[in-house]
Amino acid sequence: MPRRPTLSTQDLITGVRAGDRAILGRAISLVESTHPAHRVQATALLDALMPHTGGAQRIGLTGVPGAGKSTLIDTLGTRLTAAGHRVAVIAVDPSSSRTGGSILGDKTRMQRLGVDPMAFIRPSPAAGTLGGVARRTRETLLLCEAAGFDVVLVETVGVGQSETVVADMTDIFVVLLIAGAGDELQGIKRGLMERADVLVVHKCDGDNIDAAQRAAHELRQAVRLLHPASAPWVPPVLTASALADTGLSELWQTIARFGEEARARGEHDTRRTAQRARWMWDLVEDELMRRLRSDPTVASRLPHLEEAVASGVLAPTHAAEQLIAAFLADRQD
Amino acid sequence: MPRRPTLSTQDLITGVRAGDRAILGRAISLVESTHPAHRVQATALLDALMPHTGGAQRIGLTGVPGAGKSTLIDTLGTRLTAAGHRVAVIAVDPSSSRTGGSILGDKTRMQRLGVDPMAFIRPSPAAGTLGGVARRTRETLLLCEAAGFDVVLVETVGVGQSETVVADMTDIFVVLLIAGAGDELQGIKRGLMERADVLVVHKCDGDNIDAAQRAAHELRQAVRLLHPASAPWVPPVLTASALADTGLSELWQTIARFGEEARARGEHDTRRTAQRARWMWDLVEDELMRRLRSDPTVASRLPHLEEAVASGVLAPTHAAEQLIAAFLADRQD
Repeated sequence: MPRRPTLSTQDLITGVRAGDRAILGRAISLVESTHPAHRVQATALLDALMPHTGGAQRIGLTGVPGAGKSTLIDTLGTRLTAAGHRVAVIAVDPSSSRTGGSILGDKTRMQRLGVDPMAFIRPSPAAGTLGGVARRTRETLLLCEAAGFDVVLVETVGVGQSETVVADMTDIFVVLLIAGAGDELQGIKRGLMERADVLVVHKCDGDNIDAAQRAAHELRQAVRLLHPASAPWVPPVLTASALADTGLSELWQTIARFGEEARARGEHDTRRTAQRARWMWDLVEDELMRRLRSDPTVASRLPHLEEAVASGVLAPTHAAEQLIAAFLADRQD
Repeated sequence: MPRRPTLSTQDLITGVRAGDRAILGRAISLVESTHPAHRVQATALLDALMPHTGGAQRIGLTGVPGAGKSTLIDTLGTRLTAAGHRVAVIAVDPSSSRTGGSILGDKTRMQRLGVDPMAFIRPSPAAGTLGGVARRTRETLLLCEAAGFDVVLVETVGVGQSETVVADMTDIFVVLLIAGAGDELQGIKRGLMERADVLVVHKCDGDNIDAAQRAAHELRQAVRLLHPASAPWVPPVLTASALADTGLSELWQTIARFGEEARARGEHDTRRTAQRARWMWDLVEDELMRRLRSDPTVASRLPHLEEAVASGVLAPTHAAEQLIAAFLADRQD
């Protein structure tokens, strides 16, 4: 990597606030770093920028590979920048690696948005724990807001629990599905229905239109059944095609309507406040557990305890007591 | 409470293994106690009994108030004891209180099972954190198995996250629903569909038969849509009426079939091993967080930090760092 001048925290603050894309990129790299000195600077940077965050529509988006997520983001994002929005696209992909690169936030798959001066695309941070990726993505989201982006799309491919993580950091969570052969919906996953605010049956074009519309119809009935009539919002099921450029206006209007209704109910602020609190406690929990697992005494006893628990000879409660004691043993308690 | 002779750990071990109901009740009271000395004895008791656990079918059951859960358990339980099973019924109800009493595990609502010598019914432990109630219920389940019960029903009314807790400690999770006016299903909750292994539309009797069967039909279609055709088990939707004594054989056969298929796939053991591991780590996490929250330095700083995070002026990452530092400050780290 070529040597670049070191930027002071003030340089970063000023640059991000000015919307300088290069400096925003450097700031994001800083929060992605796990180096202790970088964490200190990242914390100072975020503290200074916090008052300037919160101003974007935070939109979560998930879909299986093949659902056409990149094309949808590219098309929708381009419409939004044409309408004057500044759009950032960031990703949560715990399986990514720096060398391989994530398929998310990949500019080559978002060909128009990738060169749009009003857009900013950032691939997922390098692989790590889901908690680590979540932290870095949340901090990246805050930096993008401080840089003046008013729409931030957070995408994920839905590996493991990444949808939960994305739903927990956004105002609205959009799930992209496609109709397979015989009306079967691809992209449905246990747990996804629970978090989806909007469902989109994508690739509703060409020979696929009938299958897509039938699938959307069935899904609409399933959704209706699963939500009490009294619920403030019943997730709508839309059809769309980024390729044919259909359904995207309806999608954006639906997202806007959701936001208006959420604000009218006070739900928007409530959701964000709850997310901030959960974020704090998630971090506390993650860090405590990380320190426990890396404690030398714990590390030496863990394999035996896990084996004994797995085989059913040691009560999990007893094993837990031993782990806690090992971790806090040489700590004043 | 009348003074009773203190039982030694060996007395408890012997009595539980002999299936002595009075001693089983004392053992359960012991694991429910949070007194440190009792925890020590409880741990010794469970360690001694672990090799004798694991022998029951662990069945989770949830349903909204009014779904007829107690009647169903009473009727199904009585059929089972008549067939030679020894049936224990325990509950997870974080909202219960010792004075008020939980509506779960209430013998007055299970009139036949409550006096059946082959059955044992235990109300939920007193209110506390969901984690605390979960721990005590899991330990109670183990004690019941060590006492020779071969069917253990764990019931919950579905407050907050209690369904997740019950699904995490059982082999199969049954969700009870009822058809409201106009086919609307009562008892559907976001998240419930995700954990249900069997769904039962209950109170399918009298004037309600048509509505119940229509609701079951619609639910069946929704379930089919939400599960890939390739899934090893697609949750069946049954109708039943404990009052009219219909559908209960089918329910028990479905439960049995699920168990057979799970064992054939090796899924039964995998599920239990994973549950034991998760139980251990849940306990470690709960205890670490409990100690953090009760730390005096943390307690003094928390209100300010929570307020700053809630209002958006302090980055959650920074607040988390401060909490961890406060907790581990006077601990060698």
